[in-house]
Amino acid sequence: MSRLQQAMAEATESVNATLAQLLPDADGSEAQLYEAMRYATLGGGKRLRPFLVLTGAGLFDIAQEYALRVAAAVEFVHCYSLVHDDLPAMDDDDLRRGRPACHKRFGEATAVLAGDALLTLAFDVLSAPATHPDPEVRCALVQALAAAAGGHGMVGGQMFDLEAEKMTLDIDGVTRLQQLKTGALITFACESGAILGRAEEPARRALRAYARDLGLAFQIADDLLDAEGSEEVVGKKVGKDAAAGKATFVGILGAEQARAQARMCAERAAAHLELFGEKAGLLRDVARFVIERRA
Amino acid sequence: MSRLQQAMAEATESVNATLAQLLPDADGSEAQLYEAMRYATLGGGKRLRPFLVLTGAGLFDIAQEYALRVAAAVEFVHCYSLVHDDLPAMDDDDLRRGRPACHKRFGEATAVLAGDALLTLAFDVLSAPATHPDPEVRCALVQALAAAAGGHGMVGGQMFDLEAEKMTLDIDGVTRLQQLKTGALITFACESGAILGRAEEPARRALRAYARDLGLAFQIADDLLDAEGSEEVVGKKVGKDAAAGKATFVGILGAEQARAQARMCAERAAAHLELFGEKAGLLRDVARFVIERRA
Repeated sequence: MSRLQQAMAEATESVNATLAQLLPDADGSEAQLYEAMRYATLGGGKRLRPFLVLTGAGLFDIAQEYALRVAAAVEFVHCYSLVHDDLPAMDDDDLRRGRPACHKRFGEATAVLAGDALLTLAFDVLSAPATHPDPEVRCALVQALAAAAGGHGMVGGQMFDLEAEKMTLDIDGVTRLQQLKTGALITFACESGAILGRAEEPARRALRAYARDLGLAFQIADDLLDAEGSEEVVGKKVGKDAAAGKATFVGILGAEQARAQARMCAERAAAHLELFGEKAGLLRDVARFVIERRA
Repeated sequence: MSRLQQAMAEATESVNATLAQLLPDADGSEAQLYEAMRYATLGGGKRLRPFLVLTGAGLFDIAQEYALRVAAAVEFVHCYSLVHDDLPAMDDDDLRRGRPACHKRFGEATAVLAGDALLTLAFDVLSAPATHPDPEVRCALVQALAAAAGGHGMVGGQMFDLEAEKMTLDIDGVTRLQQLKTGALITFACESGAILGRAEEPARRALRAYARDLGLAFQIADDLLDAEGSEEVVGKKVGKDAAAGKATFVGILGAEQARAQARMCAERAAAHLELFGEKAGLLRDVARFVIERRA
């Protein structure tokens, strides 16, 4: 097992324990809601964003107990976005992480509400004293997550994605779409350790630049998996983008050039980390990992 | 025009201006999202919750600029909940505030996303420095709103409401449902001024007690409007609860006893405000208003 694989496995275990502890137990008249929240969050997943939070926080020697809560908040937002994105009115996906999507398992109404409650829980977690002793830091986290997740970030990207079905996007359009839809939250994940560490701009700027290229590499790899992967391995429906006539990096560049582009982005991402020296080894490994992953 | 009517009209004007200023302008590829957010928020409404925030803040001499932002955040949450609640998979309502519901006007996908973005915006607004100079206060606001709006508050109440269609609720069940579904957010609205003013427990407890009885009175009045009002005046579909076989205060108590109960709750609400003396005159007026309103 590589250094990265071992670190990711350890992080996933800690993150899963934190998620399980922060989620409400399934009982009472609202049991189905809590069950759906747990199902949507605890049912596997790469935990890439939490790993980025933990690894980024490692650069600033942040206590694990703080970083884990921020990691959980990011994952709650990511999972809520998948639940709402899979709804029939949205992407209409029945399969997620190799299991029925939340609305297939619990019904649409419960899925809408579970997403709403997960998003709310993320802000609850970030603003709680247990996340950091300094309320200024907690407010900065809430501000940054809201910006990344809201109408000018992830949700804006989902709207753009729906609108894009009626447009012909060029490479700039596809890049902007990615930066909103998935890039903004990845950037928050990468930068949150610096917020917890009250780091200065050069460090924060470097992490944002890393995140931007990492997010692009990740998305191109995702497009390649959608174009070339199998449903069994990827754990969700594949070939959807082409079927929907969606513009993707692969569609515009072709598979070969897309692969080269992903490699270049990954290298560029790693290069942004120079000022952190050896300490950023794992983050450099992540950049390689996202373009080599098979699911 | 009564003192209350004049105060409410003035508050509504200030609140609407604040909402309009905080909402994103409708342009770019995500224009439809922003348009839907504006439509769902700026299209009328009693602005009862914002009024409670402003009036509660008045007890502690909070600067209007702070209180208005908290009032806007509460209204964003209220409006998002209506948008999601009206979805076909939820209550399936086509009419809201006398106009087509958000999903009828913009489609379901956009309505889901507009709700998500409004909820996110509420936390963005509360955590921003412009809402209060003390980050401890801002974190306390985020914490309180998340608790009121999330799985153990409003969203939990919506889940309970859906589940309740399969149950026979008694008066305790209907009361608990109301306290979650609408009571929690009303309580936050009433208490938020005390949070802004860093008030001590006796004042906060009094406001919570006021809010609990006010919320009950409000809900019983709402049930009466649903049972006896007309769609033109109320601005949304009526007679729905009976048609859906939902347990309501009116269904359990009968109209006459429900009216008496609402009156009693309103009186009790006003009585909780004793320690604020004359200063709480408008909040006492509100208690009377909620049981006399026709829409």
